[in-house]
Formats: sequence, structure tokens, C-alpha cells
Amino acid sequence: MPVGTQATVKCMSSEELKSIGAEIILGNTYHLYLRPGIKIIQKAGSLHQFMHWDKSILTDSGGYQVFSLGALRKITDEGVKFQSHIDGSYHIFTPEVATDLQLAFGSDIIMILDECAPYPCEYDRAKEAKDRTTLWAKRCKDRKHGENLALFAIVQGNFYKDLRIQNIAELVKLDFDGYAIGGVSVGEPKELLFEVLEYTVPELPDNKPKYLMGVGPPEDILRAVELGVDMFDCVMPTRHARTGQVFTSNGPLVIRNAPCADDFSPIDPDCGCYTCQNYSRAYIRHLIQADEILGVRLTTTHNLYFFIDLMRKIREAIVQDRFLEFKKEFMGRYSNY
Amino acid sequence: MPVGTQATVKCMSSEELKSIGAEIILGNTYHLYLRPGIKIIQKAGSLHQFMHWDKSILTDSGGYQVFSLGALRKITDEGVKFQSHIDGSYHIFTPEVATDLQLAFGSDIIMILDECAPYPCEYDRAKEAKDRTTLWAKRCKDRKHGENLALFAIVQGNFYKDLRIQNIAELVKLDFDGYAIGGVSVGEPKELLFEVLEYTVPELPDNKPKYLMGVGPPEDILRAVELGVDMFDCVMPTRHARTGQVFTSNGPLVIRNAPCADDFSPIDPDCGCYTCQNYSRAYIRHLIQADEILGVRLTTTHNLYFFIDLMRKIREAIVQDRFLEFKKEFMGRYSNY
Repeated sequence: MPVGTQATVKCMSSEELKSIGAEIILGNTYHLYLRPGIKIIQKAGSLHQFMHWDKSILTDSGGYQVFSLGALRKITDEGVKFQSHIDGSYHIFTPEVATDLQLAFGSDIIMILDECAPYPCEYDRAKEAKDRTTLWAKRCKDRKHGENLALFAIVQGNFYKDLRIQNIAELVKLDFDGYAIGGVSVGEPKELLFEVLEYTVPELPDNKPKYLMGVGPPEDILRAVELGVDMFDCVMPTRHARTGQVFTSNGPLVIRNAPCADDFSPIDPDCGCYTCQNYSRAYIRHLIQADEILGVRLTTTHNLYFFIDLMRKIREAIVQDRFLEFKKEFMGRYSNY
Repeated sequence: MPVGTQATVKCMSSEELKSIGAEIILGNTYHLYLRPGIKIIQKAGSLHQFMHWDKSILTDSGGYQVFSLGALRKITDEGVKFQSHIDGSYHIFTPEVATDLQLAFGSDIIMILDECAPYPCEYDRAKEAKDRTTLWAKRCKDRKHGENLALFAIVQGNFYKDLRIQNIAELVKLDFDGYAIGGVSVGEPKELLFEVLEYTVPELPDNKPKYLMGVGPPEDILRAVELGVDMFDCVMPTRHARTGQVFTSNGPLVIRNAPCADDFSPIDPDCGCYTCQNYSRAYIRHLIQADEILGVRLTTTHNLYFFIDLMRKIREAIVQDRFLEFKKEFMGRYSNY
């Protein structure tokens, strides 16, 4: 799902997101809480109304951003105290605060406040974060109110199998609407991520969505889907777009590179997106070289379309019971660059 | 007309420009010559094809940008030698080069290479620039070839009435398709600009378009139209948009200011643009505060619409023979902020 940190998916309007088929976006509670602040969003009615988006919104709990602050935060069982990266002011996120904020945003999918341990991490420290995640998950569940909204738990346990399995048992007992695999994409070798998926996904309830947070490139998405993951979020499509890196059916392409200077073909001749229907690699490269915003808009539009289209094709292939075949076809072409 | 320095009107796609009613854009020969360079544009077929724009393009001759380089350029009757602001490399624009470049772009309206004197400027220096403008205008005219394209002269003469009148006589004798008033908006007091218009416009042929270069805010456009000007170009709508300054029927508005923080009305309730139909001042302010590109896109879209719509209303009022009435109505509301 497209990620919108500051009440927007970078460069994109809500109408454009809808036109490329986006059905859900992610909002960062930490960023929205600091700016514009909850009062303004409440006064607008909801985050949907504030940003003129009438489809679904998933908000994270703010935990991940707060933990990324490092020296600027302190964690206890009560919650996490942190300093704003904008003005240094002090704030506290408790499970109750994180839940209340997301309720006030009017989010459709609310995430529990969890504690994300770093990589590498000693067993005792990883266990402490896992235990606190369970404790906080229960408090979020107790706090949640309202109909037509889902509360997702986040599985922690770092890269220790027994902690992950324990955490799942504890969380499943509390009965959430969905389960995210958190605490990955924190700098570990890629194979460790897939190891975690191999032993966690089968433990999660068959009838609940499984969400892998912060992943990733097309090849990782396909491997994770094969292991049973249903949902993903990642900054990769938009962040890569801003540095002139685009995704094509024949693999990634760095559009800043010289060969694109007089290449008047679209980014991906097989792509149906607005960018590929209207603009050439040469023109987009020129715009990016000249620091023109339109360049980044065109690459962002294309990359988001590419990922949304990939997920659509994956769903189709699953329904038609030919996912492994699709994965092989896709990767045969994609990795052949 | 919207100004596109780097083969784009800043932030906007060609499709968006068309959807707000733009029929002509301006390209800067100096910028396009340096980057992406004429070879790439020729290989694309034309500037229209390069940037996917099938409506009209007016290109300037590059003269104004080159003269703005100051120490980096040297002018003789042959042409102007200058150093690139990008890499310091040496280049020469002669009237022939400037014309050939614009022909190669496939421009619909080509401007002569002129010499723009500074403000203030001594009489002899102003006369020299005026004489050179006439000399170069003739060489551009001799160089021009091709059908379905217009060549516009640029009137110089600084702020000396006799030089302006002489220059017009010389240029009109050469018979151009249109006439621009150049050498204004160079730092002079605003009343001097209108003085120049008062004594130059009546001297220009009734049946040819009169184009005021680099102007301006709505109040100046209305005064200039009253004095007989037909065409304008200006960076103001897009440049102001990037600093969060927007135009409304009730006057200018700085959307970064605190009162907009919880103002959920559109920029201009009477405006039919995409921004005003979909987004609030509070949301746009938030985006601009957070340095989100969408903020600048929304203000740019609005400001361009505002100016294009103003010109449309002016044309309607002229056709209905009620221009002065329209001007009074518009200014009564606009200056009442």
C-alpha cells in the first residue's frame, strides 16, 4: 500500500492515487501527531476529510518512528517518552494514546503500539520487547472502540524463533482482526527475514490478514506472498522515484543514467500508467537532471502503478491457482536485466 | 501565458495545463540550449514532441537570460558571447543562432534576439542597445524560414521616449508578425512601465499582437490591457505558488500564515479549479509547512487557473464592450483585502 507520511503520498494527489487503483494508504501517527496535530485533523472531521481521501486508511501506532529516534526516546512499561524531531518538545505515547490518536484520525485499520527491537539484539532485550508488545497489545485492545474498524496486532520477537512463536500465541489469544510481522527490515541480512516468515506465517490464523511491514522490492514481495503474506507497505516505490530509479517488467532502471538521454521509448513499453502512455525516458531524465518536480511526479506515478499492478496480478494468479507459474514468469523477465 | 523554463511549466504536466485552459506556453531558448541541448530536442522531433505538448509554444531568443548573466557575457554587433551558468563553458548567440535554435525547436512564435539595457541606463548606452536591436531584428527576419510560424520583434529604447518611438518605426518598417515591449520589469518604478506603455502601444500597428514581456500581477495586467496590450508572460503565478502565495478574487493570500491552519474553506470559494474543488486551505498549508510537493502542486494549479481565467474574462469583457466596467468590478473586490 502507498505510504503517506505527512497526510499525503509523496508527490501524489488523492485523485491520482485513486486513478492508479490505490484502495488503501498508510498514515504515520507520529508525523501526523506532531504536524499538523490532532486538533486540526479532528476539526477537519477525520484524516480522510483532511486529505480528501474517501478510501481506506491504515495508520501505524507511531512506535516504529519513535524507536528510530534513538537517543531522543525512553521506553518503560507505561509507554515511550520522546522528543519531537521538529522542535525538541517532549511527548509520551502510551498504548492508550496511540489508540486514541488513531481513533481520532478515523483510521480504518489501527495498529497496536509495539516495541521494535533492533538488529542485532541480545535474547533478553528481545524478550523484554516481545513481552512489552503483548502487554501493550492488550491495552490497545481494551482501549479500542467503534464499529467498522479493524485493530491489527504486531508480532515481535526479533530473530528468535521461540520468542516469535510465544508472541503469536499470546497475541492470537487476544484475538485481533489482523496480524503484522514487525521488527523486520531493520538492517538484518535478507535471508533472516525469510526465515522469520517461514516459521511465523504458518502459526498465524488462516482466516486473518497477514501483513509484512516495510517490505519491499518486487522479488521480496513475491517470495513473501509464496510464504503466505497478504499485505505490504513500503516507501520504496516513492523513495526510489525521487532518486530517478524506476521499476520495469525487465527489471529496475536508473533513469538518470546516460543511455536514457536520447531514449524516446516509455519507461516500460508494457505499462499502462499515465507516465508511460505520455512521456519518454529522455524527457523524464531531462526533468530529473534539471531538478524539475514534474520528473519526480512522473517516476512516482509509474512506480506506484507498477507495484499496485503487481499486487493485482498476484491476486488474479492466486484466484486462478497459478501463482507459482506467475512468479516464475515474472522473475524470469524481471531478473534478466 | 505559463512560462516553462526547462521544457516544463514548473510542477505541471502538459495534460494538466491543457485541462486548465492553457493554449500557449513559453520556452526559454537559453535553458533549453544548455540542457537538454538542441540535439536531443531535434532527435525527439520538436520541443512539442519532447514535452508532449500539442498546443502552441512561444520561445524567447535567449537574450534576456544571457544579459542577466552579467560578468559572464560580452556583447558585440556580431552577437553575445557567454559562459554557461551550469558548467562555465563558452557559447555565442548571434541573431542567426537564436533564430535557428527556435526553428529547430519547432516553435510557433519565435522572438528576435534583442539587447535589453539595464535600469537605470545612460542615453548613449540605451541608444546603442536600441540600434543593435534593430540590426539584429533585421538579421533574424532574413534568417527566418518556414510557414505557420510567427516572428515577433521586441521594442527596446529603455525609458527614453524618443528611442522607443525610433525603434518602433525601424521595426515596423521590417514588418513583423507581432511586437513585444521589452526592456521593462528590469527594476524600474512601476509608473515608468506604464509611461512606456502609454507612448509605445499607440505607435504599434493596430492589426498586430502587442506583447508585454515579464508582467505581472493582476492589477498590472488590467492596466496594460486598458492601454492596448494583448499578451503577457510571467513567472509570478508559479513562483508565488512555490512560496505559498496564492491569488484570490478577494486579493492575494499567504497560505503559510497561521489563520489558514484551521481554515477548511478552499483558497477561493468562487474558483472552479481542481485545487479549490477538492482541497482546503488548512490541508494545503499543512503540505507546504511539511515541504510536501503536493502543496506546491495545488497552489501552482490554482494560480495558473486564476491568471488564465482572468485573461478569459478580460477577452469576454472586451468582446461585450464592457472592459472598463469589468476592470472596476474586479479591482473593487481584489484590492479590498
